[in-house]
Amino acid sequence: MSDKLRLGMIGGGPGAFIGGVHRIAAQLDGEYELVCGAFSSDPEKSKASGMELGLSPERVYRSYHELFERERQLPEQERVQVISIVTPNHVHFEPAKLALENGFHVVLDKPMTFTLEEALALRKVVEASGKRFCLTHTYTGYPMVKEGRQVVASGQLGKIRKVYVEYPQGWLSRFEEGSDNKQASWRTDPSKSGKAGAMGDIGTHAFNLAEYVSGLTVSKLCADINTVVEGRQLDDDGAVLLKFANGASGVLMASQVAAGEENNVKVRVYGEHGGVEWQQSDENTLLVRWLDKPAEIRRTGTGYVSSYAQHNSRTPAGHPEGYLEAFANLYRNFALCVKADLAGQPTQPEWEDYPGVEDGVRGMAFIEGVIASGKSDQKWINFSIEA
Amino acid sequence: MSDKLRLGMIGGGPGAFIGGVHRIAAQLDGEYELVCGAFSSDPEKSKASGMELGLSPERVYRSYHELFERERQLPEQERVQVISIVTPNHVHFEPAKLALENGFHVVLDKPMTFTLEEALALRKVVEASGKRFCLTHTYTGYPMVKEGRQVVASGQLGKIRKVYVEYPQGWLSRFEEGSDNKQASWRTDPSKSGKAGAMGDIGTHAFNLAEYVSGLTVSKLCADINTVVEGRQLDDDGAVLLKFANGASGVLMASQVAAGEENNVKVRVYGEHGGVEWQQSDENTLLVRWLDKPAEIRRTGTGYVSSYAQHNSRTPAGHPEGYLEAFANLYRNFALCVKADLAGQPTQPEWEDYPGVEDGVRGMAFIEGVIASGKSDQKWINFSIEA
Amino acid sequence: MSDKLRLGMIGGGPGAFIGGVHRIAAQLDGEYELVCGAFSSDPEKSKASGMELGLSPERVYRSYHELFERERQLPEQERVQVISIVTPNHVHFEPAKLALENGFHVVLDKPMTFTLEEALALRKVVEASGKRFCLTHTYTGYPMVKEGRQVVASGQLGKIRKVYVEYPQGWLSRFEEGSDNKQASWRTDPSKSGKAGAMGDIGTHAFNLAEYVSGLTVSKLCADINTVVEGRQLDDDGAVLLKFANGASGVLMASQVAAGEENNVKVRVYGEHGGVEWQQSDENTLLVRWLDKPAEIRRTGTGYVSSYAQHNSRTPAGHPEGYLEAFANLYRNFALCVKADLAGQPTQPEWEDYPGVEDGVRGMAFIEGVIASGKSDQKWINFSIEA
Amino acid sequence: MSDKLRLGMIGGGPGAFIGGVHRIAAQLDGEYELVCGAFSSDPEKSKASGMELGLSPERVYRSYHELFERERQLPEQERVQVISIVTPNHVHFEPAKLALENGFHVVLDKPMTFTLEEALALRKVVEASGKRFCLTHTYTGYPMVKEGRQVVASGQLGKIRKVYVEYPQGWLSRFEEGSDNKQASWRTDPSKSGKAGAMGDIGTHAFNLAEYVSGLTVSKLCADINTVVEGRQLDDDGAVLLKFANGASGVLMASQVAAGEENNVKVRVYGEHGGVEWQQSDENTLLVRWLDKPAEIRRTGTGYVSSYAQHNSRTPAGHPEGYLEAFANLYRNFALCVKADLAGQPTQPEWEDYPGVEDGVRGMAFIEGVIASGKSDQKWINFSIEA
Repeated sequence: MSDKLRLGMIGGGPGAFIGGVHRIAAQLDGEYELVCGAFSSDPEKSKASGMELGLSPERVYRSYHELFERERQLPEQERVQVISIVTPNHVHFEPAKLALENGFHVVLDKPMTFTLEEALALRKVVEASGKRFCLTHTYTGYPMVKEGRQVVASGQLGKIRKVYVEYPQGWLSRFEEGSDNKQASWRTDPSKSGKAGAMGDIGTHAFNLAEYVSGLTVSKLCADINTVVEGRQLDDDGAVLLKFANGASGVLMASQVAAGEENNVKVRVYGEHGGVEWQQSDENTLLVRWLDKPAEIRRTGTGYVSSYAQHNSRTPAGHPEGYLEAFANLYRNFALCVKADLAGQPTQPEWEDYPGVEDGVRGMAFIEGVIASGKSDQKWINFSIEA
Repeated sequence: MSDKLRLGMIGGGPGAFIGGVHRIAAQLDGEYELVCGAFSSDPEKSKASGMELGLSPERVYRSYHELFERERQLPEQERVQVISIVTPNHVHFEPAKLALENGFHVVLDKPMTFTLEEALALRKVVEASGKRFCLTHTYTGYPMVKEGRQVVASGQLGKIRKVYVEYPQGWLSRFEEGSDNKQASWRTDPSKSGKAGAMGDIGTHAFNLAEYVSGLTVSKLCADINTVVEGRQLDDDGAVLLKFANGASGVLMASQVAAGEENNVKVRVYGEHGGVEWQQSDENTLLVRWLDKPAEIRRTGTGYVSSYAQHNSRTPAGHPEGYLEAFANLYRNFALCVKADLAGQPTQPEWEDYPGVEDGVRGMAFIEGVIASGKSDQKWINFSIEA
Repeated sequence: MSDKLRLGMIGGGPGAFIGGVHRIAAQLDGEYELVCGAFSSDPEKSKASGMELGLSPERVYRSYHELFERERQLPEQERVQVISIVTPNHVHFEPAKLALENGFHVVLDKPMTFTLEEALALRKVVEASGKRFCLTHTYTGYPMVKEGRQVVASGQLGKIRKVYVEYPQGWLSRFEEGSDNKQASWRTDPSKSGKAGAMGDIGTHAFNLAEYVSGLTVSKLCADINTVVEGRQLDDDGAVLLKFANGASGVLMASQVAAGEENNVKVRVYGEHGGVEWQQSDENTLLVRWLDKPAEIRRTGTGYVSSYAQHNSRTPAGHPEGYLEAFANLYRNFALCVKADLAGQPTQPEWEDYPGVEDGVRGMAFIEGVIASGKSDQKWINFSIEA
Repeated sequence: MSDKLRLGMIGGGPGAFIGGVHRIAAQLDGEYELVCGAFSSDPEKSKASGMELGLSPERVYRSYHELFERERQLPEQERVQVISIVTPNHVHFEPAKLALENGFHVVLDKPMTFTLEEALALRKVVEASGKRFCLTHTYTGYPMVKEGRQVVASGQLGKIRKVYVEYPQGWLSRFEEGSDNKQASWRTDPSKSGKAGAMGDIGTHAFNLAEYVSGLTVSKLCADINTVVEGRQLDDDGAVLLKFANGASGVLMASQVAAGEENNVKVRVYGEHGGVEWQQSDENTLLVRWLDKPAEIRRTGTGYVSSYAQHNSRTPAGHPEGYLEAFANLYRNFALCVKADLAGQPTQPEWEDYPGVEDGVRGMAFIEGVIASGKSDQKWINFSIEA
């Protein structure tokens, strides 16, 4: 009998980009089997998607409420174990809360919720549930991003002084709202996306990446938030000056109107003795610079990288692993932890290294912080989250 | 009910690299379900592998002979449909032949067979069987390799004049034979690998890539074949001067002793008006150069690339798709064709664009040709294959 | 008889970096002949330098005062024509003023003066003198930086929306003051460097580059200015949010504690339809990105680039021209203009394209603005300069 | 009094590319003063060029014969010391011989002569003259090419096994002969260029670079030589398999019909433990790869590179030095040696590291060897030069 985890999906019906990515990511390492889903708020579309995915018709549900109700009544060996939620932001909190309260582990797309308030509430639900929770900040799944974090954590760079992170995109350079571009429509709609556009969609990724690699936490920020394209309801561009708790400073740049740019998210962290640099356009490389020595090109799939980088790689050096593999690393590590828990086995630190509810709370605080700062005449605003 | 194709695997047990890659590739797009296998020549190891993969024990076989015998007796709706063969080269021909003769479609790892004679025989079997056959020359699965072929085929470069292809690796720089490195051991063993080492393992990839992108066929060659590491039984390095049927010339370089190199296979094709360049270290880019205009950077996932490139991509531009996705493209296109055949539907040219038995015959002729040339004092030898 | 312009130099004695660069730049195209100088505030060192450079002893002066006094008494055909000033910042204003008032053209190293007040005063001197004045913002001398400006100016990118400029260095990561490193010592000394350290030394270059390529002018800014290394008297790091007069926004980053970084200044400018990117580590390339088309790689020395790029290049495409050539372009264009003036001939727009006193005034206003902003709790400060 | 060496030039009149390059290179470091020349075989053009360059009219000669005759009669302190010869290949031998025999040091453009016979004769003249002789194989002047040679020479890579060198250009993709393109016309004319076109023009550079970096000497070769463009009289493309005296093998590729390529000469040398890679498009970087460690990025202008690399660099790391600086390094090292000789001082090994007559003899033997091999049916031809 298969030891695959039984996965259910909420959202990810026709026209969704990220739903398909989640499915590939979950299946890539053979750790999950998709057994049920509520793929759309439209019951007909949900059915059609489920059929197309080869699910048993009786486990394709008309709503996530129905999903939870029915699944929890199934025998334990059949019942779904992990719920993957890939809906727009305004439909994150409730299904996540219900999933956890019904005893399911949850994988949730970012940003975690619609508001910071919901995020703080969800944190409590997660803690009370005893269930595992993963927030899909994809970029932290890249082996060389993990290597960057490990280089910093090793202390070899000395005290960290400077962080640059950027996420330039160009795909919203025109007013696409109302067109066939479903992605453009919901992501720029405050009733679905929340308080922020670009800052929520990609700014949170950049923020998470900066904190993840540097190992630092932001304590103050000063934001310039712009809506560049006429008629747009949410921000499509911004830049944020950062102060970290250890005294380091940083700059975060995110734009969806950098015409001609794709998704070349990039992070640089500098300490007293050197720095690390990673960018998605050269995803299998970590550049490690030193004050008085040649820079090093560290590569995925080699024998000399950290256990974290090695664990999150599948192919020999030089055979590139990309975005789907990075995404799959989140799912795989989550599965390894869930299965170990089920088996009463200890987990390994490499497995536990996936983004969780605390990343989600910080991401929502970032969104609210930068939007508030963007409107303020005051330079610095404090960035702190209630415990 | 799932419309996944039922897949069986021969080889790919413990310690195998390429077997795992095939499994990920087959499952990545959800087109196949692994239903049976004979994973090792050791029945115990085969069983263990099958259990680990979650197969029903009764469909984990002790040998491929058993697999064919039993599977053909299963009801048509249960029976395996596609056989994936991922064994060392000396166990390619017989299982492929048996699979085809028992009515199964075949996906076979390269090089196609142990000898050219076997390759010619297998071609006849494929033709007689009416079944589909795919040879996994991975690199032709990359969207930007396909784009390169399309640029050439469009005629925009004019007549093709020059082809450079190279595949530098360094992993066999030391004598690793007899160590734990199972890959090193069989790939350098003439009883398993065949007449050639590096030329068979990576030279054939380079050869295939050169012919695929240029759309040309090699007609003469002159090879320098070397065994650099002392004690090694097969070549670990070589370079080949090429002449193509249209009058173009080329150079092929393949080495497994280029210390420090990973797998950065690279191809360049030049015509009268410009050229294309692709390399695996920047896998989502095709460089298109022009005589009198700026070079273009064409990218996976954009709207301006050919239908072939678009069809073989899953994520938006800038989210890199790597080696596993390229491999998955072979499996996916093969599945689309098989399913269309089953449904009595026509296929599309983009689906039919996967390497087949002819590529395999040419690859085996390449191996025999370069080994012969390497030993000859004569400069050019003709490269022709009996029809 | 040589038609070289007669050049005199103030500063640039032993231990000076930029003096040697100016000399190479001036001589590279054979437009100038060094005829006199006051190379150090120490008369002995000045003499020694002059001898080493092969000058006539009677034209190596003990001070710039002496230089001006003596040279103006020489016959017109012998007298120095252009004065190059390469002293530390606190010795810029007076020699520049005296040179102009004594009828000499001036090439001055950046930042233009010690204070904004001096800069405004020097602007008046330049205007009153009728002499030519060049401020050596080197990076605008690169052919592909000029190409970037021309692409923007052509309107092809549409309205400019976003500017990113960065100048990361690591050479002041340690406390080097008081060591043998003469560069580190004066550049971090407020009595020689002025109000700013990194912002004056490299921030002004970044600022100039941003305005030059975008063709825009900054109207507001918000700065985070840091002194990272303990004991240092001036800033060694900073980041500035920018607003431009046309409504575009931008980010400027400059650091001298980005350990392991060299001098990879980089500028990116995005408009409605695309963007341009240039960086010094790939100095002969301008990347031009488009919303719906492949990015272009424009290259120095090709036939398709603008007249500005062509005019500022000496070698065929692919033979790289670097920093010294960029510097030489400033000197060469300045010489072409001076010679045309002398000959009563009109100049060409490509020749007039060198940085001048207005760039210097703006640079000094930038320094004072970012230092003031760095100390302020207010977010935005206006950036305006009295006419 | 100036201690500049007095330089005379033969060739380099209107329409010449390389003459201007030599002049910039000679003057860049202030080591030479151009005092006389015979710039064209047309006396009028010679005069015009000399005037434009600001020479005294009486030292602009109508022919090189006149130059030698007159200059040797000048007082020693006025007389030219170094003769730079930048004529087409068929006018290399005689002026070089005369210059040496008249007591002048010689800098000569490559390839050294019109025939191998002339090269062997010139070697004798050089040896008999006691004068210094430099052949301008530019690429060996790059600091990071020198660093590559030093890494190999240090033994850190172990025994050298493989050398790849390539020089792709596209500028002769069309039939340009007879057009205004003076360069295209003489370089493809056997009466001026010699037995080879591409192989002489750029193949010799590649050959020299391969031997220089690897420290090895070629002992056998097998060439494929092509004339691709219809109507052309000389080869415009070729590839050569190489065997080195130590047992290593190599591949040399040179083409002038690789449409869209500029001048991206590239060399890779691999030993038992790692390899080095340099290419002109990233001229200030040497990539050093290792079997089991991250690759290193070594950079011009840093403190950690060899004395050879440091000596041949002028600017801090990150301020790129390009083709003209590489060329200037040849002239500068030559001047340092000549001046030391004149002063009766010892030279330093870093100064002596410029290409000489032996490189020229080997280059001419390469040309004759590859042209002979290209016509031969035999695979390997021996490459040996009479002592």
